[in-house]
Amino acid sequence: MPLTVTEMAASLGKNLLQTAKKRILQQRRASLYTGAQGYHEELIKKKLQQFAGGSINLSKEDSGIGILSLNNLKLMNAFTGTMMLELQERVTELENWKDGKGLIIYGAGNTFCSGSDLNAVKAISNSQDGMNMCMFMQNTLTRLMRLPLISVALVQGKAVGGGAELTTACDFRLMTPGSEIRFVHKHMGLVPGWGGAARLVRLVGSRAALRLLSGAMGVDPERALRLGLSEETLSSSDETRALEEARAWLSQYTEGPASVIRAVKMVVTAGRELPVEDALRTEKDIFGTVWGGPANLQALVRRPKHK
Amino acid sequence: MPLTVTEMAASLGKNLLQTAKKRILQQRRASLYTGAQGYHEELIKKKLQQFAGGSINLSKEDSGIGILSLNNLKLMNAFTGTMMLELQERVTELENWKDGKGLIIYGAGNTFCSGSDLNAVKAISNSQDGMNMCMFMQNTLTRLMRLPLISVALVQGKAVGGGAELTTACDFRLMTPGSEIRFVHKHMGLVPGWGGAARLVRLVGSRAALRLLSGAMGVDPERALRLGLSEETLSSSDETRALEEARAWLSQYTEGPASVIRAVKMVVTAGRELPVEDALRTEKDIFGTVWGGPANLQALVRRPKHK
Amino acid sequence: MPLTVTEMAASLGKNLLQTAKKRILQQRRASLYTGAQGYHEELIKKKLQQFAGGSINLSKEDSGIGILSLNNLKLMNAFTGTMMLELQERVTELENWKDGKGLIIYGAGNTFCSGSDLNAVKAISNSQDGMNMCMFMQNTLTRLMRLPLISVALVQGKAVGGGAELTTACDFRLMTPGSEIRFVHKHMGLVPGWGGAARLVRLVGSRAALRLLSGAMGVDPERALRLGLSEETLSSSDETRALEEARAWLSQYTEGPASVIRAVKMVVTAGRELPVEDALRTEKDIFGTVWGGPANLQALVRRPKHK
Repeated sequence: MPLTVTEMAASLGKNLLQTAKKRILQQRRASLYTGAQGYHEELIKKKLQQFAGGSINLSKEDSGIGILSLNNLKLMNAFTGTMMLELQERVTELENWKDGKGLIIYGAGNTFCSGSDLNAVKAISNSQDGMNMCMFMQNTLTRLMRLPLISVALVQGKAVGGGAELTTACDFRLMTPGSEIRFVHKHMGLVPGWGGAARLVRLVGSRAALRLLSGAMGVDPERALRLGLSEETLSSSDETRALEEARAWLSQYTEGPASVIRAVKMVVTAGRELPVEDALRTEKDIFGTVWGGPANLQALVRRPKHK
Repeated sequence: MPLTVTEMAASLGKNLLQTAKKRILQQRRASLYTGAQGYHEELIKKKLQQFAGGSINLSKEDSGIGILSLNNLKLMNAFTGTMMLELQERVTELENWKDGKGLIIYGAGNTFCSGSDLNAVKAISNSQDGMNMCMFMQNTLTRLMRLPLISVALVQGKAVGGGAELTTACDFRLMTPGSEIRFVHKHMGLVPGWGGAARLVRLVGSRAALRLLSGAMGVDPERALRLGLSEETLSSSDETRALEEARAWLSQYTEGPASVIRAVKMVVTAGRELPVEDALRTEKDIFGTVWGGPANLQALVRRPKHK
Repeated sequence: MPLTVTEMAASLGKNLLQTAKKRILQQRRASLYTGAQGYHEELIKKKLQQFAGGSINLSKEDSGIGILSLNNLKLMNAFTGTMMLELQERVTELENWKDGKGLIIYGAGNTFCSGSDLNAVKAISNSQDGMNMCMFMQNTLTRLMRLPLISVALVQGKAVGGGAELTTACDFRLMTPGSEIRFVHKHMGLVPGWGGAARLVRLVGSRAALRLLSGAMGVDPERALRLGLSEETLSSSDETRALEEARAWLSQYTEGPASVIRAVKMVVTAGRELPVEDALRTEKDIFGTVWGGPANLQALVRRPKHK
């Protein structure tokens, strides 16, 4: 039996929306590296597995805020191989958390993260292994950055080297008094490889990025504020209180229905990653996922006047 | 009869210039959406036609400054369907105004614009219609943004929702005391869909854009200045005087021959929209339209020394 | 005899690195314009050869800092045709300087550069020649901008027109008291054509760029600092002392092994020129050139703890 015009329109509308949703999801989860780039994830995972220690823990709170902690106290939360693997798993878990709205990343013991565990580093100090490790971490951190969650790096103590790079994979950075972000790579005979340079240029502009990377100087909370590397200096250096402050700061932005907060993060992600015409088309797709949705319909009932 | 070498060179030069001009024009007028994207302009226009009210008026002053006003007093200048259609017509008119150099957009009754008329909104509150409306408005606002005119949104009172989005389609924003720009979309269960997010990220950076959209807080003139969302706070809130101030501010930048002012706007448009290599090539094309032109030749006569 | 697994891995690693290095180099040296764009370099070079005068001099210091000077005193260092040709040669020389880490560009006689020599300009004041000259200068300045050297324009006196454009092809600008950067093009009936608009938009944002180009006003050191057009105001206006100050400022960023400093500049270049995914891939390639390299291995010996 043929469809009525209304049924056809409804079905067409649904298809348009389904296509839009598919496009959005593909964009978010696309891997930067595949076999075509000579990248073999299983091989690098086997290698990383050999350097064990520490952990990455995630708790998902009812408020829709996830708390991700780096734990490797004796090495100032440096990344061992297994921590790199666990970070990937946690990011996958966050990708599947449909109620999530925000994320706070912090380091145990009042310090953020000191980069890579040098034991692992020494064992893979050849170009091939190094580039494979970068591809693995870039894939993970790009997926982290594209999560439909508003993310904050809570920087206490030191965020050094790869730790400084990790902060740039969050939307925002909040620093506690006396803390420091330092792209120390030059002093290690290195440059960022986890995507920290590409992201830093976007965050603070190419001039400031070039000065921070080629100077390798520490950035204190005040300078970070001026550069736009940090949003705010918290008042407490104590872990529990600093986390409380970070939660309160973030909740200003995560208040509201998850579908809407997630859509906001997605339009901004499109805006910062894509050429303007692609960003506009993606914005339209994301708009289609909330327009006429439950939160929108409720608001229309409540508010009689304007968009 | 064969051409002389000089004639050939002149003809070749002309062809190069004609090709350059064609390329520039194509870029400016390209539509974001066509039938290939499932966009059928005539259908959405028919739908918008049903929601009538208000008007968009344009006056083109001898100084080369156009004044575009939004008029829908009882709804704080919210966009009805017919106003969306009229905006498109006015933009077409501005595209064809060869003597134009600048544009001021303001709202009647000392307030800018409150977004969409909710009567229209309720009648088209399904994804398909919503996305079609977005495509229509994105096409118009992208053409507005690419006009070879230096454009200013004069913000009095409130620029809310779609009204806030409209301000981002201008090169500059000037605010009067007590006025407010507010991306209120979250409270309506929405995100921007007229391109406001894509453009806001470019104007103030992705961090500020994410805070403004996910916080949905009002931005007063002082904060707008700090964020770079506004260029200046005018001294008067009175419509006539504020328009006078906006004209005076804009005329600092529109003084000079139309061909040159329009070329300046075009190189900046290329710089902000295109990847750097494409921007360079377009800059060269635009340079070709003024180099050796009347304004340039006159200046060479007047000034004996250097470029 | 078949290779052992270790030999295969080593060979594979080397190939990966060689491919990465080739990609990086191709990107840096790619010409913007070729015959396919109707650009015939030999023809424009012959034309430029006819307008002689002045010189571009380069000295390469043991510290790894190159000093490039513009010399055409009677025309405030305006570019003659032969100076354009010499600039190209010096840039080629700098591309081949493997020990280089930094570059300072300054003008003789306490003034930076006043753009193009108007004698040359008048002789080529047709669109075709003008666009050819732009293509020639854009090719050179793009290669200058992509040098793996941290570059500084030391602005004394005036940087006007094409001189202002030249400053934007450096990573940083340092200004002496009383100096001025001025995009005077509008008053000459022109817009930038050497890439100055495309680069200015990236340096200071599209709003400030549009104001500077359409206003054609001079920018003094204080305003340049506020806009991010200058990094610092030096204390001395005297050429010798100002050069000393610029060297000291730059050496904060060039201290360290050339391979590392050059890699830092390259990751930032990738970050500012490329879409984010391409920038990430290039960052990984560049990382591969320093990871496990001599400077990195030495640092690993010295420092026992973290990346």
